[in-house]
Amino acid sequence: MFPMNAWYVACTPDELVEGRPLGRRICGERMVFYRNAQGEVCALEDFCPHRGAPLSLGRVCQGELVCGYHGLVMGCDGRTLSMPGQRVERFAPIRRFAVQERHGFVWVWPGDADRADAAQLPDFEWSGNPEWAHGGGMYHIACDYRLMIDNLMDLTHETYVHATSIGQSEIDETPCETHREGDRVITQRHMAGIQAPPFWQMAMRMNGMDPDQPVDRWQICRFSPPSHVMIDVGVALAGRGGFHAPLEAKTAATVVDFITPEADGSIWYFWGMARRFRPGDAELTARIREGQGRIFAEDREMLERQQLNLQTWPQRRLMTLNIDAGGAHARRILDRLVAAERGEAAAAAA
Amino acid sequence: MFPMNAWYVACTPDELVEGRPLGRRICGERMVFYRNAQGEVCALEDFCPHRGAPLSLGRVCQGELVCGYHGLVMGCDGRTLSMPGQRVERFAPIRRFAVQERHGFVWVWPGDADRADAAQLPDFEWSGNPEWAHGGGMYHIACDYRLMIDNLMDLTHETYVHATSIGQSEIDETPCETHREGDRVITQRHMAGIQAPPFWQMAMRMNGMDPDQPVDRWQICRFSPPSHVMIDVGVALAGRGGFHAPLEAKTAATVVDFITPEADGSIWYFWGMARRFRPGDAELTARIREGQGRIFAEDREMLERQQLNLQTWPQRRLMTLNIDAGGAHARRILDRLVAAERGEAAAAAA
Amino acid sequence: MFPMNAWYVACTPDELVEGRPLGRRICGERMVFYRNAQGEVCALEDFCPHRGAPLSLGRVCQGELVCGYHGLVMGCDGRTLSMPGQRVERFAPIRRFAVQERHGFVWVWPGDADRADAAQLPDFEWSGNPEWAHGGGMYHIACDYRLMIDNLMDLTHETYVHATSIGQSEIDETPCETHREGDRVITQRHMAGIQAPPFWQMAMRMNGMDPDQPVDRWQICRFSPPSHVMIDVGVALAGRGGFHAPLEAKTAATVVDFITPEADGSIWYFWGMARRFRPGDAELTARIREGQGRIFAEDREMLERQQLNLQTWPQRRLMTLNIDAGGAHARRILDRLVAAERGEAAAAAA
Repeated sequence: MFPMNAWYVACTPDELVEGRPLGRRICGERMVFYRNAQGEVCALEDFCPHRGAPLSLGRVCQGELVCGYHGLVMGCDGRTLSMPGQRVERFAPIRRFAVQERHGFVWVWPGDADRADAAQLPDFEWSGNPEWAHGGGMYHIACDYRLMIDNLMDLTHETYVHATSIGQSEIDETPCETHREGDRVITQRHMAGIQAPPFWQMAMRMNGMDPDQPVDRWQICRFSPPSHVMIDVGVALAGRGGFHAPLEAKTAATVVDFITPEADGSIWYFWGMARRFRPGDAELTARIREGQGRIFAEDREMLERQQLNLQTWPQRRLMTLNIDAGGAHARRILDRLVAAERGEAAAAAA
Repeated sequence: MFPMNAWYVACTPDELVEGRPLGRRICGERMVFYRNAQGEVCALEDFCPHRGAPLSLGRVCQGELVCGYHGLVMGCDGRTLSMPGQRVERFAPIRRFAVQERHGFVWVWPGDADRADAAQLPDFEWSGNPEWAHGGGMYHIACDYRLMIDNLMDLTHETYVHATSIGQSEIDETPCETHREGDRVITQRHMAGIQAPPFWQMAMRMNGMDPDQPVDRWQICRFSPPSHVMIDVGVALAGRGGFHAPLEAKTAATVVDFITPEADGSIWYFWGMARRFRPGDAELTARIREGQGRIFAEDREMLERQQLNLQTWPQRRLMTLNIDAGGAHARRILDRLVAAERGEAAAAAA
Repeated sequence: MFPMNAWYVACTPDELVEGRPLGRRICGERMVFYRNAQGEVCALEDFCPHRGAPLSLGRVCQGELVCGYHGLVMGCDGRTLSMPGQRVERFAPIRRFAVQERHGFVWVWPGDADRADAAQLPDFEWSGNPEWAHGGGMYHIACDYRLMIDNLMDLTHETYVHATSIGQSEIDETPCETHREGDRVITQRHMAGIQAPPFWQMAMRMNGMDPDQPVDRWQICRFSPPSHVMIDVGVALAGRGGFHAPLEAKTAATVVDFITPEADGSIWYFWGMARRFRPGDAELTARIREGQGRIFAEDREMLERQQLNLQTWPQRRLMTLNIDAGGAHARRILDRLVAAERGEAAAAAA
């Protein structure tokens, strides 16, 4: 129940260690990733056409993927290049997947590689921009990918799940506004004249601001299909314009979330934060990363238990309140995309 | 395959920690337990009506159960009391379960709460009686609840499973007698003029009796539905009347067993011992508890492996010997109760 | 998908500890093994006819198998001998399995015991021969037994899976020859004038040969049903006749592999080496065993991951190249044996 013809984050470049291919299941497909001799990332089915060994148990020799069982050398296009003592011209090819490397991530298109369009990759203000710094990590979570979208599109949960870091009662008390822009969904909340919660007090201090000053705080959650959620977050000195305040009066960042289904019921969750203050401060990057890691671990427990509950009561309908509007819109968009892919598949079969 | 309209032990009061709800699956139902502002134990479905989060991940604030995901406040009757920023009048209610606190346990009725009858709770001589002391523990065991009833209603297994503590060959050599009293089943064995086994020698010594004296030993297993087994056990100086001997000539106790199905194939096993000697000796209570814990761990291994075997050979019929009469009677009673519940359900549906 | 009327290795004699029966599932059958009063190994269904307890949780008293639950005493023929307080004449018998002890192993025939023929047990030159020494171990591996046969009948994998011990590129570069002799399959490869790889250099050194001399190396894999693979391996000084070289010019051994299906998708893998040099050197035996243990652990990882891959893509056909001829012949023989058993079963049922 996820679009296949879409770009998902597959891994980070540092996961592609010299000589060692990376096996990862994405959208139900077992894939192997590695860099070829040109340094380009390749993605193939993780299945040697000889006897079905996982190619990810092999190694990368001078940019070629070599099966670790009997030495078959696989080409980037899924055709066997060679195998000791064998003629390989008639070997059945394996699937290749379209891959792009951008914004500090490796992206994969699990569906039809011929339809993969690099122009559909999202753009980000923070990417490659020296005024910004970015850091993050990855969690495997046993939940449907839409539960994580719901989570990120309804931040009232911060008050309860993250009470000691970014939660505060004003989130609950401030209504949110949700609207669509084509296939994008935006949910936002602006809190005026409040005290910053612990995480933001720390950030203000690091940014040279007085953490005890009253602030205007904002959360602008931006969903785009299949499952990217960018959240503009920050605080500005009260009355200076909030999200639109001048740089010197605010501490602003973007929570960067890429949600990649492993298969039905589990995800690779790439989380992180891009910030617009002290971009060169690596220690601050590490500190934020550590704080985010703790926060998202709190979400992980909740989401995995919620998933178990929904499997126990599969028939029960959930409620969609105003705070759930962002997730609900996202689900409708995803339903339409999945239905369209199925329609195309049925038409192609007919 | 268990009665739903019956009282089962759900937990002990000390499992209900201030502020923290307790999640436990009982008879296939996921439940959450907590104390409300009046100090009464409440039991509800462990499912937030908003988005299905387990309420047991939340907290109890001033006696109200608050969902840990988005702050919904749930009432003891399964109706939502409030939620930040929401009108909750039309929120779908969740199931509540009837609960009683008695005899040092929390009891739950997994079936129709309106039919729960506190008068059906069992009574025990040892409960609240200063002449008795009670201690025990709880094990999770991966077996059908009827295998544990069989186990407790046929104590010949003590000779083999518990050879080093309470087993002795005289158990095997002494026939047992089984009879029914309505829906109760009693199996008893009286051994005359024997040497006490190690556990009972320890107990005699603690009770000021000479452990080397010949004794009359008894085991009177009392099953009552759905799955309570009280076993009168003890030793009296030989020829003094056995079970009916005067207090000063015997060391007597009741093994207290409440078996609560988690779902088909697994149980929460609440075990313990109520004794009528040295009731104020907390150290003795701890020592007995430790000994019982070791003994029931031996049963656990046997029962889990027996369960696996029966799943491997589901078609094979087991034998019912005279020693199995107690368990066989109990199964017939349970079959009848379950069939009656199904008949009612079918009649209600028609 | 394995022949049932065949001899498989069940365990080694040292696994049959005095007094303690051994439970092991073989070809889908849960079995219990023990020595009777005559010292003969017996194999029975691991299921007490009384209440289904696993007999392997019991004990062996003076050569009789006693159930650990209620003391039923089981005879070697599957008939109950006695039970405290019971008449056992009408107790349903359990299955017995034919067993033989030979070549330092316990063999079991999971099919019809009446058809078990000790004359069908294989013979080995190294067994009971003082000129040879034998050592080995056992691994549980989660793969179809035929994947292990494939592995052992195609040693080109040594170059990749065992690159640091017995692999070398000359294996890949030298064609192998495969032929059948009735239901046996032989695949062999002879490499002339090469450098010995690390394992064989060690062996040559231990055998008093100069490890830097060029050698002729051979690998002669001999499959016999149901799943025994003996591999003659070794090196001789170059030009001295290879496999047929006189003893003083070679270092020769047999890799001894017995593959016993636990059930579909997992095996007990008994591996070892019989060698014809320094048979009395127990330290060398231990050292070879340690080296083999490391090597077969490399196979284990590959085979378990291959199995997972084949389960993910059950429809996909594998390739059968010339190097796979040994495994392919073995599979055809096994298919024929299994089909014949099914035909007999269908005829018997009709």
